[in-house]
Amino acid sequence: MVHARVALFGAAGYSGVELLKILAQHPNVELVAAASDSQAGKPLAGVISGSGTSRAGASDFIKTDEALTIKADIALLAVPPDAALAIAPALRAQGTKVIDLSHAYRAAPPAEAAYGLTSLFPAEIAAASIVANPGCYATCVITAVAPLVRHQLIERDVIVSAGSGVTGAGRSASEDMSLGELHGNVRAYKVLKHQHVPEIEMALARVAVGSTSTAPRVILTTHLLPIARGIFATITVRLRRPVSSLELTDRLRADYRDDPTVVITATPEDVSLRKIVGTNQTHVGIAAAGDIAVATSALDNLLKGAAGQAVENMNLVLGLPRTTGLTHLARHG
Amino acid sequence: MVHARVALFGAAGYSGVELLKILAQHPNVELVAAASDSQAGKPLAGVISGSGTSRAGASDFIKTDEALTIKADIALLAVPPDAALAIAPALRAQGTKVIDLSHAYRAAPPAEAAYGLTSLFPAEIAAASIVANPGCYATCVITAVAPLVRHQLIERDVIVSAGSGVTGAGRSASEDMSLGELHGNVRAYKVLKHQHVPEIEMALARVAVGSTSTAPRVILTTHLLPIARGIFATITVRLRRPVSSLELTDRLRADYRDDPTVVITATPEDVSLRKIVGTNQTHVGIAAAGDIAVATSALDNLLKGAAGQAVENMNLVLGLPRTTGLTHLARHG
Amino acid sequence: MVHARVALFGAAGYSGVELLKILAQHPNVELVAAASDSQAGKPLAGVISGSGTSRAGASDFIKTDEALTIKADIALLAVPPDAALAIAPALRAQGTKVIDLSHAYRAAPPAEAAYGLTSLFPAEIAAASIVANPGCYATCVITAVAPLVRHQLIERDVIVSAGSGVTGAGRSASEDMSLGELHGNVRAYKVLKHQHVPEIEMALARVAVGSTSTAPRVILTTHLLPIARGIFATITVRLRRPVSSLELTDRLRADYRDDPTVVITATPEDVSLRKIVGTNQTHVGIAAAGDIAVATSALDNLLKGAAGQAVENMNLVLGLPRTTGLTHLARHG
Amino acid sequence: MVHARVALFGAAGYSGVELLKILAQHPNVELVAAASDSQAGKPLAGVISGSGTSRAGASDFIKTDEALTIKADIALLAVPPDAALAIAPALRAQGTKVIDLSHAYRAAPPAEAAYGLTSLFPAEIAAASIVANPGCYATCVITAVAPLVRHQLIERDVIVSAGSGVTGAGRSASEDMSLGELHGNVRAYKVLKHQHVPEIEMALARVAVGSTSTAPRVILTTHLLPIARGIFATITVRLRRPVSSLELTDRLRADYRDDPTVVITATPEDVSLRKIVGTNQTHVGIAAAGDIAVATSALDNLLKGAAGQAVENMNLVLGLPRTTGLTHLARHG
Repeated sequence: MVHARVALFGAAGYSGVELLKILAQHPNVELVAAASDSQAGKPLAGVISGSGTSRAGASDFIKTDEALTIKADIALLAVPPDAALAIAPALRAQGTKVIDLSHAYRAAPPAEAAYGLTSLFPAEIAAASIVANPGCYATCVITAVAPLVRHQLIERDVIVSAGSGVTGAGRSASEDMSLGELHGNVRAYKVLKHQHVPEIEMALARVAVGSTSTAPRVILTTHLLPIARGIFATITVRLRRPVSSLELTDRLRADYRDDPTVVITATPEDVSLRKIVGTNQTHVGIAAAGDIAVATSALDNLLKGAAGQAVENMNLVLGLPRTTGLTHLARHG
Repeated sequence: MVHARVALFGAAGYSGVELLKILAQHPNVELVAAASDSQAGKPLAGVISGSGTSRAGASDFIKTDEALTIKADIALLAVPPDAALAIAPALRAQGTKVIDLSHAYRAAPPAEAAYGLTSLFPAEIAAASIVANPGCYATCVITAVAPLVRHQLIERDVIVSAGSGVTGAGRSASEDMSLGELHGNVRAYKVLKHQHVPEIEMALARVAVGSTSTAPRVILTTHLLPIARGIFATITVRLRRPVSSLELTDRLRADYRDDPTVVITATPEDVSLRKIVGTNQTHVGIAAAGDIAVATSALDNLLKGAAGQAVENMNLVLGLPRTTGLTHLARHG
Repeated sequence: MVHARVALFGAAGYSGVELLKILAQHPNVELVAAASDSQAGKPLAGVISGSGTSRAGASDFIKTDEALTIKADIALLAVPPDAALAIAPALRAQGTKVIDLSHAYRAAPPAEAAYGLTSLFPAEIAAASIVANPGCYATCVITAVAPLVRHQLIERDVIVSAGSGVTGAGRSASEDMSLGELHGNVRAYKVLKHQHVPEIEMALARVAVGSTSTAPRVILTTHLLPIARGIFATITVRLRRPVSSLELTDRLRADYRDDPTVVITATPEDVSLRKIVGTNQTHVGIAAAGDIAVATSALDNLLKGAAGQAVENMNLVLGLPRTTGLTHLARHG
Repeated sequence: MVHARVALFGAAGYSGVELLKILAQHPNVELVAAASDSQAGKPLAGVISGSGTSRAGASDFIKTDEALTIKADIALLAVPPDAALAIAPALRAQGTKVIDLSHAYRAAPPAEAAYGLTSLFPAEIAAASIVANPGCYATCVITAVAPLVRHQLIERDVIVSAGSGVTGAGRSASEDMSLGELHGNVRAYKVLKHQHVPEIEMALARVAVGSTSTAPRVILTTHLLPIARGIFATITVRLRRPVSSLELTDRLRADYRDDPTVVITATPEDVSLRKIVGTNQTHVGIAAAGDIAVATSALDNLLKGAAGQAVENMNLVLGLPRTTGLTHLARHG
């Protein structure tokens, strides 16, 4: 039975705490280090108290420098990209494999780091030493659009309007993120300059190459929603030929038949944040009318969009079934 | 000085209550009847208590049938479309002019009812006996897109992703609208079959005819947001020729220079629900990159999207300045 | 190894869905029936899709009548009290033990039904054929106040101001519960006539008898909060003698030292809904100044306040450790 | 007709913006200076755009130092207490009267500054040169409790559990106030050490002296609620003699009969934040059972709890009717 030593860096951020909770339930890992420079010395039980933390391993947050001296088989980096670029080489030098949740390695060539979109590239990930865990918007959009590209169903432009809960921006002490500013509020941000677009276009281009389809152009407008968790994307595309809602839905269902983390709903209206927050699933629904198709896609930005997919990537690297330790994250009611 | 007798039907719904509050401050009207079959017999002070209700006029809700016997110069209908179609002819027979907030008359030919988009069709409205007050989504989208059509700047397809607070659906006793279902939730509804699309396309076609531009096709996906009030629309279009963000913004500013209810912000990111909820304004921001432009547009669905624009229409019909009685609805902080 | 056949009635309500999710992870039970008259015929996967539902057992909701024909060792009733009183005798006649989440049996004499406050009465519960699962407000208040009564620390009056998320009222199609009415809203309900008071006073009186303390009088004001989940109670008492905040905290910690579902925080300010929603824990903090003590207490109304404690009661009846199948409900970050 | 020159300091904070909006509608004042060191140079129209700002006067935010050189009849200070103590003497030296919204002068002896609880001390306020505008919690609690003290109805202890929206803490860039931390959250703060208690006890003691009643002791627990605006207080007292709910309600109604800013509702359940947010009113409801009475009290922390009452105080100092310029802040639906 696989028993891996895991080190976690950035253990007290939003994604870090989700990782702590998942790892505490994971049957094949021991958490040997939980690094957080701001919380060092404090007990992990302060954030994940209760019966879920009885297993052996780290019991307190420690400093990053101390964590780097502890031998681990695999390290999860839930730190900003600069910190990831500083820590990863030291870990690799010790033979520790790395799952990085930041965007530091997302644009890297596959030779250096696998792009950890688990539904699309599992073989590459399993063979990688560094895995770039995808962004939350990217996972949400790519999951919905990849089958449309693969089957050469759509014209080039993919118009996406997507919104995120505020935890997508990490823990922050900014007036912009205060409830006083955000209660009942909605606003767009980074219009026509979102950093996630290249990541999405790169992944879809690889899907297109495999199918001699056209590499799509993604026009993404992101919004801040007055909620804590969740990404919801609405995707509008022009179809190359008329395809019924049912045929589109069946195509997506066929593509994701064996994927335990993707649910294709009957209609786009069936997708809702309420059903996916707290789970490690992406829900996608699609409908068409004439030459237009509209898909909706939703996931929990801290789970499938960060910590959950990171654990999937860890499992693939360790040779474990992809959803080991994630099965309790069932759908909310 | 104009002094008009005004009757209000549907006075206890969300839009009706907003109308009660506005009319209580309006210098040129007397509220002679406030009809609500469900609240008949109860005092108006129960919903708009305080010093704002000291003026003469109706003091209790009355039945619709009773209200129809009271002579009024103008009637505001904040009732469902079926009720509007039943009430309006009786009012017209008495010589009472009608502002209808439902969609009953929105598709009617201009000979029968003016389409009450006050920024676009003020002369028609001023001459009309029946004014079809536009829908909240329609007002939000048309305001942003009309200048782009007028100046022949865009290709045919207008892709809109828009969200509404739950008061947009009226007072309701449905499980779907309960806070237990909606807290932290977002979902799409009526995908590819929204009833507002013909209304938007019709208004934009009239703008296009005036400019020999192409009548746009609107693809609108609507969403329910976990907030009480506000419409936020994100609009993506393809430009016929490269136009800078600044030029687009200047075009919109020029078109709305004399419009007291439209604010063109410096960027699409400057538009937010927080700034328009509680006001009678539409805020629009726009940016471009290459051949793509993205505009954001927001308004309060109960004010500019319903009661506020209805009072503008009433003012136009009465020959008053458009924002009479609305000037206290200044921008929120 | 214990392997019990469990039937669930009211499986599609808020508590029912939580029970479905917990039972899907429970190592010692098979769900043999999931009854919901409104959802009969629909798949369970519609509400708890994903990898968590792979175990054998019920796969569709069935009618109550059909569920009553399926032999079970234990039944969980997440139905209204009238329905519980109708179903329970039939189940008892078949030898099925009953955990009832409604208030139907809460006022029953211990001979007929054990009061399932698991922290206080585990032996009685283990021996019972019917267990009355406590209310969410009752669990929240009793957990905080019982040690103060047990150690004869307080005067008779216990002043409680408590608020609940809207799921505490069950799924509902009422205008009062709509987000349009509740967004940004707070209001009190059932002032000076809350049905939970007798239940709380009865449990505390039993604690008082054991310690020759005075049976407290509870004055409870309940509030509806604009959130989906969680109970937060603020409890003010007069102390019989000056006791420091630290001594009070230590008393509570000592009393709950071995209780896996109660966390005593360092201060009342450390208790927050955010930390307990999604968990099966009650958090309690207390402070004193002069002759006054203030305690705060919080729990998730659907878990520790309903489904979670019901599973604890089921475990006790089955002779299992109390938190079997609940350990993944660790504290949120 | 009174025409006063008004200077506003702290014009860009939450209360400052509310003051800007009210002053823009006020018939008897000219805003001669709007000071905000952080926003100096920016146009006021950025926060209160629209037709409400057409009157003469300040058009841009200016520095505090510059504002102090502009002669004003009255100054409104919406700045922190330290800044208020620094600015007020300079203003007084110029003969400018001062309304201070901070707590700087709240504990001052009446000779130095009147305590601006407009419902209780209008004569003192009208004669004062400095008015200490009451805190939002204090206004909410005192309004409800003063009649009970005045009529010698209650025992000494007044137990208050109250919650505030986050704007009560002012604009802030803290992680604690982020929507990520507060969404769906409730927590208590400053338990047994709230700074508002002396202010409340002082005001109630003055009421007690007038009636030879006992000066009450106030035990206040404050909570942060996941909303932007509003204070809701639940007050539990022991009655000296049995008094019916109706008699208590009538007593309060009689006391506030001529007060345009206080509404006594039929029951405590009729008080809700939704009805008072956006208004300058306090709503109070009360009920009794045996020797216990429970009152609920609610107001908008930025209006009746800050800017609105400050304008009432300004009006009293200027010899104007108390609610001049506030009548459009009618009750929300």
